[in-house]
Amino acid sequence: MKKFVYGFHEGTAGMKSLLGGKGANLAEMTRIGLPVPSGFTVTTEACNQYYEEGAKLWNGLKEETLQHLAELEEKMGKKLGAVKNPLLVSVRSGSAISMPGMMDTILNLGLNDASVEGLAEGTANPRFAYDSYRRFIQMFSDVVLEIPKYKFDAILDNKKVEKNVEEDTDLTAEDLKDIIEKYKAIVKKECRADFPQDVKDQLFMAIEAVFKSWNNPRANVYRKLNDIPHSLGTAVNIQSMVFGNMGETSGTGVAFTRDPSTGEKKLFGEFLMNAQGEDVVAGIRTPKPILELQNTMPQAYDKFLEVANLLEEHYTDMQDIEFTIENQELYILQTRNGKRTALAAVNIAVDMVKEGRLTKEEAILRVDPLQVEQLLHPAFDEKELEKGKIITKGLPASSGAATGKIYFTPEDVVEANNRGERAILVRAETSPEDIEGMVASQGILTARGGMTSHAAVVARGMGKCCIAGAGEMKIQEANKIFMVGETVYHEGEYISLDGNEGIVYEGEIATKESQLTDNFLELMTWADAIRTLKIRTNADTPRDTKQAIEFGAEGIGLCRTEHMFFEESRIFVMRKMILSRTEEERRKALAELLPMQREDFVEIFKAMGNRPVTVRLLDPPLHEFLPHEEEDIQQLAQKMQVSFTQLQGVVNDLKEMNPMLGHRGCRLAVTYPEIYEMQVRAIIEAAVIVKEEEGIDVVPEIMIPLVGELKELQYNKEIVLKIAKEVLSEKEIPLQYLVGTMIEVPRAAVTADEIATEAEFFSFGTNDLTQMTFGYSRDDAGKFIKEYREKNILEKDPFQRIDRKGVGKLMELASKLGKETRPNIKLGICGEHGGDPDSIEFCHILGLDYVSCSPYRVPVARLAAARAAIINKEQAK
Amino acid sequence: MKKFVYGFHEGTAGMKSLLGGKGANLAEMTRIGLPVPSGFTVTTEACNQYYEEGAKLWNGLKEETLQHLAELEEKMGKKLGAVKNPLLVSVRSGSAISMPGMMDTILNLGLNDASVEGLAEGTANPRFAYDSYRRFIQMFSDVVLEIPKYKFDAILDNKKVEKNVEEDTDLTAEDLKDIIEKYKAIVKKECRADFPQDVKDQLFMAIEAVFKSWNNPRANVYRKLNDIPHSLGTAVNIQSMVFGNMGETSGTGVAFTRDPSTGEKKLFGEFLMNAQGEDVVAGIRTPKPILELQNTMPQAYDKFLEVANLLEEHYTDMQDIEFTIENQELYILQTRNGKRTALAAVNIAVDMVKEGRLTKEEAILRVDPLQVEQLLHPAFDEKELEKGKIITKGLPASSGAATGKIYFTPEDVVEANNRGERAILVRAETSPEDIEGMVASQGILTARGGMTSHAAVVARGMGKCCIAGAGEMKIQEANKIFMVGETVYHEGEYISLDGNEGIVYEGEIATKESQLTDNFLELMTWADAIRTLKIRTNADTPRDTKQAIEFGAEGIGLCRTEHMFFEESRIFVMRKMILSRTEEERRKALAELLPMQREDFVEIFKAMGNRPVTVRLLDPPLHEFLPHEEEDIQQLAQKMQVSFTQLQGVVNDLKEMNPMLGHRGCRLAVTYPEIYEMQVRAIIEAAVIVKEEEGIDVVPEIMIPLVGELKELQYNKEIVLKIAKEVLSEKEIPLQYLVGTMIEVPRAAVTADEIATEAEFFSFGTNDLTQMTFGYSRDDAGKFIKEYREKNILEKDPFQRIDRKGVGKLMELASKLGKETRPNIKLGICGEHGGDPDSIEFCHILGLDYVSCSPYRVPVARLAAARAAIINKEQAK
Repeated sequence: MKKFVYGFHEGTAGMKSLLGGKGANLAEMTRIGLPVPSGFTVTTEACNQYYEEGAKLWNGLKEETLQHLAELEEKMGKKLGAVKNPLLVSVRSGSAISMPGMMDTILNLGLNDASVEGLAEGTANPRFAYDSYRRFIQMFSDVVLEIPKYKFDAILDNKKVEKNVEEDTDLTAEDLKDIIEKYKAIVKKECRADFPQDVKDQLFMAIEAVFKSWNNPRANVYRKLNDIPHSLGTAVNIQSMVFGNMGETSGTGVAFTRDPSTGEKKLFGEFLMNAQGEDVVAGIRTPKPILELQNTMPQAYDKFLEVANLLEEHYTDMQDIEFTIENQELYILQTRNGKRTALAAVNIAVDMVKEGRLTKEEAILRVDPLQVEQLLHPAFDEKELEKGKIITKGLPASSGAATGKIYFTPEDVVEANNRGERAILVRAETSPEDIEGMVASQGILTARGGMTSHAAVVARGMGKCCIAGAGEMKIQEANKIFMVGETVYHEGEYISLDGNEGIVYEGEIATKESQLTDNFLELMTWADAIRTLKIRTNADTPRDTKQAIEFGAEGIGLCRTEHMFFEESRIFVMRKMILSRTEEERRKALAELLPMQREDFVEIFKAMGNRPVTVRLLDPPLHEFLPHEEEDIQQLAQKMQVSFTQLQGVVNDLKEMNPMLGHRGCRLAVTYPEIYEMQVRAIIEAAVIVKEEEGIDVVPEIMIPLVGELKELQYNKEIVLKIAKEVLSEKEIPLQYLVGTMIEVPRAAVTADEIATEAEFFSFGTNDLTQMTFGYSRDDAGKFIKEYREKNILEKDPFQRIDRKGVGKLMELASKLGKETRPNIKLGICGEHGGDPDSIEFCHILGLDYVSCSPYRVPVARLAAARAAIINKEQAK
Repeated sequence: MKKFVYGFHEGTAGMKSLLGGKGANLAEMTRIGLPVPSGFTVTTEACNQYYEEGAKLWNGLKEETLQHLAELEEKMGKKLGAVKNPLLVSVRSGSAISMPGMMDTILNLGLNDASVEGLAEGTANPRFAYDSYRRFIQMFSDVVLEIPKYKFDAILDNKKVEKNVEEDTDLTAEDLKDIIEKYKAIVKKECRADFPQDVKDQLFMAIEAVFKSWNNPRANVYRKLNDIPHSLGTAVNIQSMVFGNMGETSGTGVAFTRDPSTGEKKLFGEFLMNAQGEDVVAGIRTPKPILELQNTMPQAYDKFLEVANLLEEHYTDMQDIEFTIENQELYILQTRNGKRTALAAVNIAVDMVKEGRLTKEEAILRVDPLQVEQLLHPAFDEKELEKGKIITKGLPASSGAATGKIYFTPEDVVEANNRGERAILVRAETSPEDIEGMVASQGILTARGGMTSHAAVVARGMGKCCIAGAGEMKIQEANKIFMVGETVYHEGEYISLDGNEGIVYEGEIATKESQLTDNFLELMTWADAIRTLKIRTNADTPRDTKQAIEFGAEGIGLCRTEHMFFEESRIFVMRKMILSRTEEERRKALAELLPMQREDFVEIFKAMGNRPVTVRLLDPPLHEFLPHEEEDIQQLAQKMQVSFTQLQGVVNDLKEMNPMLGHRGCRLAVTYPEIYEMQVRAIIEAAVIVKEEEGIDVVPEIMIPLVGELKELQYNKEIVLKIAKEVLSEKEIPLQYLVGTMIEVPRAAVTADEIATEAEFFSFGTNDLTQMTFGYSRDDAGKFIKEYREKNILEKDPFQRIDRKGVGKLMELASKLGKETRPNIKLGICGEHGGDPDSIEFCHILGLDYVSCSPYRVPVARLAAARAAIINKEQAK
């Protein structure tokens, strides 16, 4: 006969699908000898059988349950429903995959009119006993008998009014007894039956309620949306309850096996004598540090120390443990891997390797790569933060913390900075013209835009704190205020940004410095030894380049040439170029830009040494370089000595309905080949200069953006080859360089076999590829992507994590086709995803050569790449 | 030994790769007994051998050539270079694929100082002889000796100045003799050798020049861009020249075997006695109708009739024949399939079936499907058109012809129309708000936008003439003028649009009616019997629906529900809906829209009878329904009784950077499910009404737009099922309906296997799919796509013809994946490509069930579908 009920001592961690997650965990703890309150689990198979029996508890199951109950009673020396020292149990659901929408917990099952007296006597606390009974009736009625909760609440509220008290805790035992009678009356009225006094009935009804909750609509919808098979079923865990409030030899507490904020190896936590868990939470009495338990109850403390060690040994991780002491007897109620700060995570992982508990590979898997970025930035002092008043929330677009005065224009930020003030740039959204203001600011706050908006991308590149898309904030730039609801914030007032959480605070909050500890550096060297992916960086300036090298970058995967044109001295020349009416005029302006751009490359090449540098030729549409407000156009017209009408005409002609899908990337160069000619000349000449002057052998990788068709690439490659030949024959120096393309247009992915005939490398531009594959504009999609995630239509924002099913499928296709044509083609990624751990893992699986990310993501990427190598090696075994 | 030279009588049409296109054609004509001037072809293999020999004519080839020359001389009774009755030949290149950039033609080879006298004597026209010699020297010097043409031109010009004459023809024989001497002096100076008097040298040099031209840079670039293998090589055709100016028993002419404008079966053409071909072209003498040849030279005429019949018989098509009569002897110089009007094409094809010359399948292949659309629209009277003055050109966005007065706003057009004027709407671009003005106009002319711009799509839907993207035109709406260059056109002045060619004319031009002849209808019934693709239409109004049924539509493939909201009475309610601040307000506005929308569907369903109707739920972003100019916002605010600031706030909030990739399609319904709820209710209720009232069993196909992810479809399908269930349980009527989706987002194509678990049909939205696969905004791409086509980067505008390599690959993938999941899934296409013959063929190959196109494209599609079935059946054999 099939076994449907397992004592905790009969199971193991491996029996998750039969016992559910919770049941398997309880069994495992019991198996390794932890003092877990005893109990048993009704299996998931029983749940399925329940539905096969027509949603009825069949006799066989009842008998098996009662048999395990009898064993439990014997073990605990208590009896369910007994008048003296009664056994009480909790009943919990637990499927193999944890899932909201199902019945959660019934506590204190086994209480009835008789046993409540036993509990009162045992705890010497009648108030507690009646309150437990009252709560049990209400909870049981709610989840098992389906009587609405509010009906009970009304009675409790009336009683408080009657007695003129504020809190439940002010009610006496007598009050509670009265309430219990009234609760029972409700049950009688609603069910036309008494509240069940037979404790075995209570148990069977609770088990059945758990089974039923598996099939309720919320649970069904959740399973459908999350692809969880209905056939899994849920298990039911019945566990004896223990009480920390059985007098002065009882107590309860919570402790970590190591310090969760620093990782230091010492017990960290607190306890309360003669108390239940909720007393610790309620905060009425002040708990004591865990180390004092040694004096209060040395035996229990020693036992706890032993258990803590055992748990760390078993789980080889820092544990967060809930315990109760009932009459000197220590019980472990729950243990789980403890939450910790980034600093603690790194320290614990490295320490555990040194303690011989973990291998280096395991240590790497213990640190969340995304968390380590926090170590590179300043952060708020946690105690200060608790006092902060939250203004609003936005997207955590770039990590770190920043405090400063509100300013609404880049110019004002620059001026404030010159006056020695710290300034926060607050803006609807940023554009390339705002760069100088962004540089001068402590941090950036925008009302619009998502995780890959201009503000977010640039701020991450600078390692500057940024919160984007704080949509509640209404900015009135003209009045120099912003409003959230009715509250007004003025220019010059302090605000503080928590870039890790996306929270905006009022006032100044003190920050603490970044935490690049020795342990961190050691962990990184381990990661480097393990990973196979190379890590490059996206950097457009010598400053970014140097920062990225400090963080371990092995090359530049994306140098955006357009950012170089936004500096004040250059934008004017750039605009002259755009406004040119003939090729000749345009070539003249470009000739002015050439030495500037060449100098940038010289600096970047010098900073990078022999490391590879991928330079992307001009990508954005030309209108991004022109002003759009009437006033600005007027000003520029004056400066350029052209008529306002003429300039506005050009601005209008260049205007596009959907600039993302417009005249940009290599499409520009098909119209104006001279632009790319200038850029290629600047790159090649710069490479020659650093070779001559510093002996650095740079191999520039020239990247053509937005290619969708082989002939586009051919056309532009011709330009590159022609100019390179010209320069190199002038200089008579041999120089290697590569010509490749972004794969960012779906058509390029689909025709990658053709494209690879000309491209020496592919770099996946997953920002654009995601935009076009989903048809989401990253400037506009913020609004509905949020809603999509809330409604569970998207598991994750695809601009943050590569969508493996769609975008990933195209990447896979492109890699496969590209390698078919050119087996040694170099493959990389330079979209924002290059800094996202899950996406990095995907790149590892695809077999890319490198990922490229913003400088402050380089350590994240190093760790994530190592993780990917470890996990996929394990899986390959 | 390999044979490198073939007499015309030795080849056939099948030897194209050896003899080149031209050579094979001459051989074929000779083979079927036509009086073609004799000659021979040096093969393409000889060309390749030439390069293998180090670019030298080897002796073997020379000998073989001379041998064929001797045979030719014998056949013609003339000798190359003879002083009396000399043989002259033409030398022409001819590869298997016709190709620009190569040497074209040398005429009159064989002339030298001696033979020119023979020609003078034979034609009794010394002026003609010397002029021929002069031209021959110049042409030979240019293409063979590579002496620049302008050097010769200077001499000719000087002579004309000296003689004080305007035209070459005013020069006398003596003048020409003098010029010849000077020409020869140039040759001597440039080549340090005399102009070759040895006619065999002339011949060998000409052959070599043809071989060399195969390898010139222009030809090489052309081959590279067009994927023509270099190894094809070119052949050289040497053909004896005949002269129509050998006196009154000679002549020349051109004739069609049928009337090229009506198709009527009678000879149509003209001739001139004692003349060369160029005399006919030059227009100095007036040619006579071909029928008069019967009187002038009955024998030659009879021979010509016989030849014309033979040619039609052989090519089973109407021929355009050039002929020359030399001393009573008829020679056919060239024959090709004659160009013809759409009307003639249809009539000839149908007549030839009746004559037993063609099968129905062949007849269908003879008519260009795109051409037949012209038959459905009014067209300009051709004679009137010749007088028209062209203002500018744009894209031929919608066929037909229109004449009317210029108006710049839809309101002005409506007023003019009410006054009884014919009006042309001239506008930068149109938007959905302009619909009423578009309806009231004769035709539409826009400065911006491409073949799939709003103006183009809507105009095609209405069967209204439209020219889009006439970029030269600068519109100043405020001044009510437009300018092209310096010329100004004012409101109220007449212009005329030729929608077939995209040409804008000044003034009024008379039009003639559409030409739906019996032959046309008969051809259509044949097409219907052959095609396997169903043809549906894109129609949003009962009027369009009825028109489409008249043209043979078998269902609606795309009914865009949003167009229904732009009518004046509705747009206000729609705007109320958009401006609602609560779901309740929004539901109230939607409740007002419900009866309007339901009534539309009732009318459309009634018009369609039992044919299937696919209704697409709301697709465009909400801001399309709001005004954007400050003034209009002000007005609307007043009308809606909300503050200007509030309304502008909403307009700004809804503004998007890239609306094409923004909050639209089913994304709207995820945010506001109540919108789709209303629409589904309107559809289902309407279906119930027509079933009850008319007994029509409509099976609505409800289509969810812009799906990219299965869960999006699930979310929206839930809405459909819920509302349909509600309505049908209220009405207690059984009704079938389908729920499906557009495949227009690349991700939907890539994950079509998942999507098909919920979708009962797919409809390829190839407009959006093309936009996203290429990353081209169809609103903005006009500019650079033109440039791309000019530079040969794109073979064809992908918005006009499905790009099989990229977009097509995604369609193929989606079809395959969709069928894997749901073998009987219904597949169709509703993008603009559904009316493009090449795209229709691709849909046939993919195995789609139907294509859907605008009403006026339905006949085009019927024919194109039949073509596709015939061609692909033939290929499958």
